[in-house]
Amino acid sequence: MLYEDVATQVARLIQTGAYRVGDRVPSVRALSRKLDVSVATVLEAYRMLKARGLIEPRPQSGYYVRPRPVEASPPSERPAPPSPAAPVAVHELGMKLLHDARSRSLVPLGAALPRPALMPFDKLRRILARILRLHPAEAHGIDALPGCRALRVQVAQRAMLAGLPLSPDEIVTTCGAQEAVSLALRAVCRPGDTVAVESPIFFGILQAIEVLGLKAVEIDAHPREGMELGCLRAALRRRRVRAVIAIPTFNNPLGSAMPEEKKKELVRMLASRDVPLVEDDMYGDLHFGFDRPKAAKAFDANGLVLTCGSFSKSLAPGWRVGWLAPGRFQRDIERLKMTSTLATATPLQLAVAEFMAHGGYERTLRVQRKAHARAVDELARAVVRHFPPGTGVSSPEGGFVVWVRMPERVDSIALYGQALKAGIMIAPGPMFSPRGRFRNFVRLNAGAWTPDLDRTIATLGRLARA
Amino acid sequence: MLYEDVATQVARLIQTGAYRVGDRVPSVRALSRKLDVSVATVLEAYRMLKARGLIEPRPQSGYYVRPRPVEASPPSERPAPPSPAAPVAVHELGMKLLHDARSRSLVPLGAALPRPALMPFDKLRRILARILRLHPAEAHGIDALPGCRALRVQVAQRAMLAGLPLSPDEIVTTCGAQEAVSLALRAVCRPGDTVAVESPIFFGILQAIEVLGLKAVEIDAHPREGMELGCLRAALRRRRVRAVIAIPTFNNPLGSAMPEEKKKELVRMLASRDVPLVEDDMYGDLHFGFDRPKAAKAFDANGLVLTCGSFSKSLAPGWRVGWLAPGRFQRDIERLKMTSTLATATPLQLAVAEFMAHGGYERTLRVQRKAHARAVDELARAVVRHFPPGTGVSSPEGGFVVWVRMPERVDSIALYGQALKAGIMIAPGPMFSPRGRFRNFVRLNAGAWTPDLDRTIATLGRLARA
Repeated sequence: MLYEDVATQVARLIQTGAYRVGDRVPSVRALSRKLDVSVATVLEAYRMLKARGLIEPRPQSGYYVRPRPVEASPPSERPAPPSPAAPVAVHELGMKLLHDARSRSLVPLGAALPRPALMPFDKLRRILARILRLHPAEAHGIDALPGCRALRVQVAQRAMLAGLPLSPDEIVTTCGAQEAVSLALRAVCRPGDTVAVESPIFFGILQAIEVLGLKAVEIDAHPREGMELGCLRAALRRRRVRAVIAIPTFNNPLGSAMPEEKKKELVRMLASRDVPLVEDDMYGDLHFGFDRPKAAKAFDANGLVLTCGSFSKSLAPGWRVGWLAPGRFQRDIERLKMTSTLATATPLQLAVAEFMAHGGYERTLRVQRKAHARAVDELARAVVRHFPPGTGVSSPEGGFVVWVRMPERVDSIALYGQALKAGIMIAPGPMFSPRGRFRNFVRLNAGAWTPDLDRTIATLGRLARA
Repeated sequence: MLYEDVATQVARLIQTGAYRVGDRVPSVRALSRKLDVSVATVLEAYRMLKARGLIEPRPQSGYYVRPRPVEASPPSERPAPPSPAAPVAVHELGMKLLHDARSRSLVPLGAALPRPALMPFDKLRRILARILRLHPAEAHGIDALPGCRALRVQVAQRAMLAGLPLSPDEIVTTCGAQEAVSLALRAVCRPGDTVAVESPIFFGILQAIEVLGLKAVEIDAHPREGMELGCLRAALRRRRVRAVIAIPTFNNPLGSAMPEEKKKELVRMLASRDVPLVEDDMYGDLHFGFDRPKAAKAFDANGLVLTCGSFSKSLAPGWRVGWLAPGRFQRDIERLKMTSTLATATPLQLAVAEFMAHGGYERTLRVQRKAHARAVDELARAVVRHFPPGTGVSSPEGGFVVWVRMPERVDSIALYGQALKAGIMIAPGPMFSPRGRFRNFVRLNAGAWTPDLDRTIATLGRLARA
């Protein structure tokens, strides 16, 4: 038996679902005994499966099935040249989405919300109640700039995992990542300035750019490796770009992670031109692979990277607790935060800090990562099953959204309306582009997993075919 | 015995503290029996005391001692003409104050924070814990624009008391009043625009104006009746004023309430010129008199008044729950709120709503009003006792801060530094003016009442004399 045969056999077991995303495949020794082949043969087979992205090794633990939708093809093949700088106009669409999302009867494939069952609501509630009982004056009182120290200490400790040696004093707590992004943009830009924006990107960022009166240059993101640095370089040469904004780790909607070397190059390129990078690191903790990727800020020697984080995707979306590491813009951010909301809700900051310190945050994240990886995998498979031929699906490395490229003739805004009538909420592609591109794309939220998922996707697929 | 004699006798009892602020003085019938004078004589005496501002009638209840510091004289006699429009620069001072305020060992006469013992922390905590237990998905989840409906319903109901027939859909919830004020200014002004600002006014408002790149025209406030409308009219004639911002009800730091007729005139004047009014109504519920004064928005027929409210002064400063009634700017405010913080913390909104609905909010406010009125009175008396001759003290009609005019030679910024060394935090006058006026004024927080108050004020008085 050749190592290719071993690999084929294991690949088939993965494809048929015998081993699911996050499962451990048999150990090298066990498989060699079972198939009566040498350890070297199995090792070679596993190396091959790893190269194909089907499995990944974890130190001292073995090989695990990686998420990888069948027949997935990258959403776009060749990056477009950087767009002209132009005002952004995605706001109305976003407002409509948020408004429609209030209806609780819809299947919520639109917003990027994690499954409530995965969130430690019960533990958070008990921690919060205890803090308010034991420290009433502190927990009900205001904790002004730069925010609750207990939380800043925890965020700083965790930042180490992302390669960030932050001190608690280099962190400002915020009312969710949306405030962090908004303050960061206000700190580094003035109305009329041009921002280079990774595309596609989360529409909340585009709305902030629009409302702040900034112009956007759209920089294509490679479906697996993030922002195309060649395009960015061209854009930086061509015009005065005041700042760059991107989600380098698990871009929303792509799910892609920019490789470390590329992050390093990005930060170096911007440093040489003294251009700040606003890094949205919302999803960094929700990696499907073994390691937490480094943040771009890990390579920032000049304080030019402003990194935004949040607990909305891992603990409680409605608590609105986030943070910002503003680098050299610390003082500007404090001024802005003070006049924008003065402070973040104290009791919720304290409870998040306590949960991080003693509540099993890492354990919670482990469970979430595995569940998200599986949900993304299942959703992507269902899309491939039911959507028209020629549909491509992203292969997220983290987070819980899936980006779907439908055939060119499908209009996702029309599909949005039809899906709504069928009781399904989706996020149409043009929301994720400053200029309303991605007309034939949709983002689907794998956090909304239900037993009916297959039927829901079948309905969507039918609508997309029609 | 003449009615003047009766009045003198009652006045003396009030001045010596036999009847304290908020106490009921003897009924007309009881006093007439006791002093053996006619009911008409007592009535006449009470009318005289009422005219002097010492007592006030409450329907079906009798006469009550009003807060009125001894020897109080108005902080300024004649309004200054409107200032030239100029950028604001109070930010650094405000940042320093906030920074210094983090030290918990200081006597906190600086920030306007209510006494924790007056806040219903225990009840709030229990309500919050119950909501999180019974409705975990809803309470931990995000409740997007325009904010939790349960809270908007309660705010709308209470707004009736301020003469505002608001529907819940005309309210947007915010992260405290600071976000409300900031969003309101951003909705009606662009950087470089000129805002007419009541002066003195809460420095958080001035900081927002500064950070947003607006220019301010300073409009003097009469110490008892609020913004001088003559000055405002002159300013409106002279230049393009994009908006007006004021705290018509219990101005912070003055404690004054603009009379209803004047509010009406203010709103009419602005309506005729299509100029929006940003109304900070933070303190409206903390009236010392019997009735809740009407908000300026009560007279707004054109949707030009944006009223900002909050629960930071009555329930929990650190919860950061506020609201904004944006009138015709509803859509702009929603756009801004969405990109600024997306949403306000859900569980805290729900708990405030529940407290308002069934927690005894009105009872809580009644206790607070009386306590604040007394604390303000005691603080003002202590100031008069210990500060240099020529010191004047405000006569607040609500809220819990006292505005002190010291003799011209006293520099409140120097006093701030000396007081800090003595372990006392104060708010120097220049923070309350766009141009750093009120050099010989300080604002003192009566919410910081302690048994040592007299000694603390004696220390401050000694420093002010030196």
